[in-house]
Amino acid sequence: MGTTFERATAVRRVADGTYDVELDPAYSIGGPLHGGYLMATLLRAMLADAPHPHPMSNNFHFLRVPRVGPARAHVEWLKHGRTAATARATLVQDDRPVLEALVSTGTLDPVAEPLWMGEPPAMPPLEECVPPPATPDGAPAGLAAQLELRHDPATAGWLRGEPGGRPEMRGYLRMREPQDPDPYVLALATDALPPAVFGIGALGWAPTVELTWHMRAVPAPGWLRLTMAARMVYDDWFDEDVEIWDSAGRLVAQGRQIARVGRR
Amino acid sequence: MGTTFERATAVRRVADGTYDVELDPAYSIGGPLHGGYLMATLLRAMLADAPHPHPMSNNFHFLRVPRVGPARAHVEWLKHGRTAATARATLVQDDRPVLEALVSTGTLDPVAEPLWMGEPPAMPPLEECVPPPATPDGAPAGLAAQLELRHDPATAGWLRGEPGGRPEMRGYLRMREPQDPDPYVLALATDALPPAVFGIGALGWAPTVELTWHMRAVPAPGWLRLTMAARMVYDDWFDEDVEIWDSAGRLVAQGRQIARVGRR
Repeated sequence: MGTTFERATAVRRVADGTYDVELDPAYSIGGPLHGGYLMATLLRAMLADAPHPHPMSNNFHFLRVPRVGPARAHVEWLKHGRTAATARATLVQDDRPVLEALVSTGTLDPVAEPLWMGEPPAMPPLEECVPPPATPDGAPAGLAAQLELRHDPATAGWLRGEPGGRPEMRGYLRMREPQDPDPYVLALATDALPPAVFGIGALGWAPTVELTWHMRAVPAPGWLRLTMAARMVYDDWFDEDVEIWDSAGRLVAQGRQIARVGRR
Repeated sequence: MGTTFERATAVRRVADGTYDVELDPAYSIGGPLHGGYLMATLLRAMLADAPHPHPMSNNFHFLRVPRVGPARAHVEWLKHGRTAATARATLVQDDRPVLEALVSTGTLDPVAEPLWMGEPPAMPPLEECVPPPATPDGAPAGLAAQLELRHDPATAGWLRGEPGGRPEMRGYLRMREPQDPDPYVLALATDALPPAVFGIGALGWAPTVELTWHMRAVPAPGWLRLTMAARMVYDDWFDEDVEIWDSAGRLVAQGRQIARVGRR
């Protein structure tokens, strides 16, 4: 039942506000589990009892590196308002918190027209964008087996050892299985591009300390357009500001994370 | 002892992780207490026992409107790491949570050079910027009695009933008393400009649902430069993306809030 992604992020209620989850090895990236996958999973526990369907504001602090296997989500509601409701949640493994979240939900009109909207990002058409390299046997590697990414060639130089010189990433994203974008796909997508600092040659694992994203509109089916940039890299801390636009040309999510420059 | 701002945000420890605060009428804006002031006060309780001096990532969800007078802050540490430590905190009044926070602290080198930094905002010099209107008797009104704002004329049209047509605000800010910018002043400053939607004529009280800000560098003394813009106003929700630059030309804080379009 459901897609691979839905099964991998499924939660099973064991008591009021308590859910069992099974962290899936398909969402690891060379070892550690993908941050967006962890956010999507904890978000599913939070929305299970939410009075509104849309996670308007989502804060996640990455406390420890969880391993594949069982974990437990605890959800506590702080406010049930008509416009917004707020809950905090903790993903726990081996009795230790690994991911802490604070989420406010709301209800978005799926067909409203924006009163004001900024310019969408300038990106080449999908056909001109490039997939990440496959493994030697031709199969997509790691997370790429779950989702399709197409890099804007202007921010893909690092793939061939020639970083473009700016901490930016842009690309198109969709799930490999037929799966329309929903709040969980958006959670995954906010952290799906490679670290922005790859664009200035700072390769290596760049751990997220905290990521906040806002859902702004209900996404249309189809490819998502992602654009991401850092404003400052300072003392080994950097930000990543991400926007997600849907196939109908609407801004559907905004996010910012603070992360540590990776070591090789 | 201390400045007016320091006294107004002071916390008194009553037990481990429990602090009494006294919410100060000087930080009300025509009734409700200023969101930045509430954030600064709760942050002071959170940093009282923090292992690092700098609040790298700060999430605040505004649950209920508190009134002037006593309130209590509860702080719980989730992780004490060498690079980052994370706590959650709740400001409680009349046994109900009014403000919920999640903060990760770290230690910033005050004299590092950015590895990469984006362009600072284009703003006219301080002398060309305009103060907000005074009260009829010439005294600064409300929050303006505590801090000095100078609006970029390009985003000040709404002050004379002529909104510029874009949801943007830019200005200079400092405290009226001699007070160097510190993490608490930054917390106040992230919410100190009028709502960005005033720039498109959507006046009225615009309640913040959630605000996240990141401290990026230790600010130099002097005026802060603030720049703020909304990317989308949709279904009565809007975002406000704020940057704070110090007098030395460094990006010291970034923030984004999600708020509701005000009603008149």
